[in-house]
Amino acid sequence: MNGNNEDRLTGWLRHLAAGAGGEHIGDDAAFLPAGGPWALTTDTQIEGVHFHSGLPPATLARRLLAVNLSDLAAVGANPRYALLALAAPRGFDHRTFFRAFVAGCKTHHLQLVGGDLATGPTWTAALTLAGEPVAKRWVERRGARPGDRLWVGGTLGESALGFNLVLRGARPEGRAIRLPKRVPADPRWQRAARRAVRRHLAPHPQLALGSWLARRSERSAIDLSDGLSQDLHRLCRASQVGAIIDHHALPQAAEFEPLCQRLGLDPVDLMLAGGEDYVLLFTLAPRVRPPKNLFPAARPIGVITSERDLQLVVNGRPEPLEERGWDHLKESS
Amino acid sequence: MNGNNEDRLTGWLRHLAAGAGGEHIGDDAAFLPAGGPWALTTDTQIEGVHFHSGLPPATLARRLLAVNLSDLAAVGANPRYALLALAAPRGFDHRTFFRAFVAGCKTHHLQLVGGDLATGPTWTAALTLAGEPVAKRWVERRGARPGDRLWVGGTLGESALGFNLVLRGARPEGRAIRLPKRVPADPRWQRAARRAVRRHLAPHPQLALGSWLARRSERSAIDLSDGLSQDLHRLCRASQVGAIIDHHALPQAAEFEPLCQRLGLDPVDLMLAGGEDYVLLFTLAPRVRPPKNLFPAARPIGVITSERDLQLVVNGRPEPLEERGWDHLKESS
Repeated sequence: MNGNNEDRLTGWLRHLAAGAGGEHIGDDAAFLPAGGPWALTTDTQIEGVHFHSGLPPATLARRLLAVNLSDLAAVGANPRYALLALAAPRGFDHRTFFRAFVAGCKTHHLQLVGGDLATGPTWTAALTLAGEPVAKRWVERRGARPGDRLWVGGTLGESALGFNLVLRGARPEGRAIRLPKRVPADPRWQRAARRAVRRHLAPHPQLALGSWLARRSERSAIDLSDGLSQDLHRLCRASQVGAIIDHHALPQAAEFEPLCQRLGLDPVDLMLAGGEDYVLLFTLAPRVRPPKNLFPAARPIGVITSERDLQLVVNGRPEPLEERGWDHLKESS
Repeated sequence: MNGNNEDRLTGWLRHLAAGAGGEHIGDDAAFLPAGGPWALTTDTQIEGVHFHSGLPPATLARRLLAVNLSDLAAVGANPRYALLALAAPRGFDHRTFFRAFVAGCKTHHLQLVGGDLATGPTWTAALTLAGEPVAKRWVERRGARPGDRLWVGGTLGESALGFNLVLRGARPEGRAIRLPKRVPADPRWQRAARRAVRRHLAPHPQLALGSWLARRSERSAIDLSDGLSQDLHRLCRASQVGAIIDHHALPQAAEFEPLCQRLGLDPVDLMLAGGEDYVLLFTLAPRVRPPKNLFPAARPIGVITSERDLQLVVNGRPEPLEERGWDHLKESS
């Protein structure tokens, strides 16, 4: 459980910056002053790295906002303020981008209070959000206890499937999605493919679920951005526990498996390591469950153990759950 | 006084985001909650845009920190927390970078509390800093009044000269600076050239001066990042005033003019529009002056007027002071 390159670097950095506030480096958000009334989070989106080049400016704006809001959801914070550092190539349509960005801010009662604009060779946006606590305590990664049930807030792998469809030519056209020819004409498949592309382009941060967890002082949560396998390892490391998850319990979108197979993709791989699900992974005491009417997509997927290893049960047979997923620093450090 | 492309876009954005907190967009820092106990600022540095490619990682770290601290200095904030979003190409030496970055944080009692790491084609860093007020009130751009004296915290144009020397081959080598052959061997010129390169690579944010202004509740200040001409127009627009500055009063580093001439650079152009001076431009009531023992480099350069135009007096003859300088969005919007 040493983590990938990014985790190794953040671990080293946490140690280096200890005494200079670095103890929480690597969490979804930083709390300041220590434990205090603000949660701050920064996330970067780079064209060609986090998404395919050539997406419309309004799509970039909504995606950037959603990805960052998901970090606030994970700690139980109400979004309040935004600072945007945007570097874009000459000719970028700033006004269309900002119209969508400010509209998104208003939807989430978020105030855009500042930032920085620059011209650069690659479209790169770093968004900093500040949130206030929904309840008396933040939801943290480190609160999982043996015996807790492990839950996810929605289906897994669908965003990664959408990303693959975009790589194969799927594109937003106004409010519609144009699909590549390889997707069969059957309306159910077409619908599933469009939903996957939308999930990738415009994720829905689970702020209401984060609020519910915070108000109930529930155990722990993490934002699934780098894939279930990677992020579950992070949650377990932070809580000093292990976990057993059931492969058959992992929630899938309708037509997910056949669509993956048609496109030559491994559905299990996408669910475990595809990344960018932007749903919460969280733990609850054994008899607690999120209200079905509010969170219909939430599912229990396993249990927290005191044994500090992670297992995936496939057809009743436990296998070690490898730590793999999106590594932001693969081969680089 | 319509501003450059960046100012036009931020003006439009301030209007678009009004009611969503956008009223302060374009200031050195945002205050939250409204007027409240935190100053937040975000700045981006991009390799090849804000500085020449190939600088050592430790230099990048110190420069990034200094540029952002200068924004906190301008509003009279004590640095407290940092969040860093860093995207670097594969192979970037993260550890050397972070060692220098964390050391710089400790010098300024700044806590690195979080951030985001990614691999990207161009080295891009967006640093967000949070500061607490030194005194009861923030120092703002909009406080200049007719009759106030206009001051700068240090010499102008030297950083732009240093940037030009780097373009011509000057490089840091350990703690030394290797100069291009074109700089004459005379030790005074060599010393002046090295100081200019250092000024560009490692600016000194004027935090003590910002604190002094805040504690005295002085009128107004702005961080000189885009050149005196540009930033003076911004300060005057925010305060709804004009200004007359004296060309001969603009402070110059030793050997600045002859060195510029030797390199074929216009010294007046560098002082007015070279950018990246990272000293404060501020206004004081007529008989007030910063203590000489604390701020020996501060100089009065002119006066604030009720006439809302900006004039530069050259050899006793007033000329309109054009708004020009570093435009982060030139030709792009």
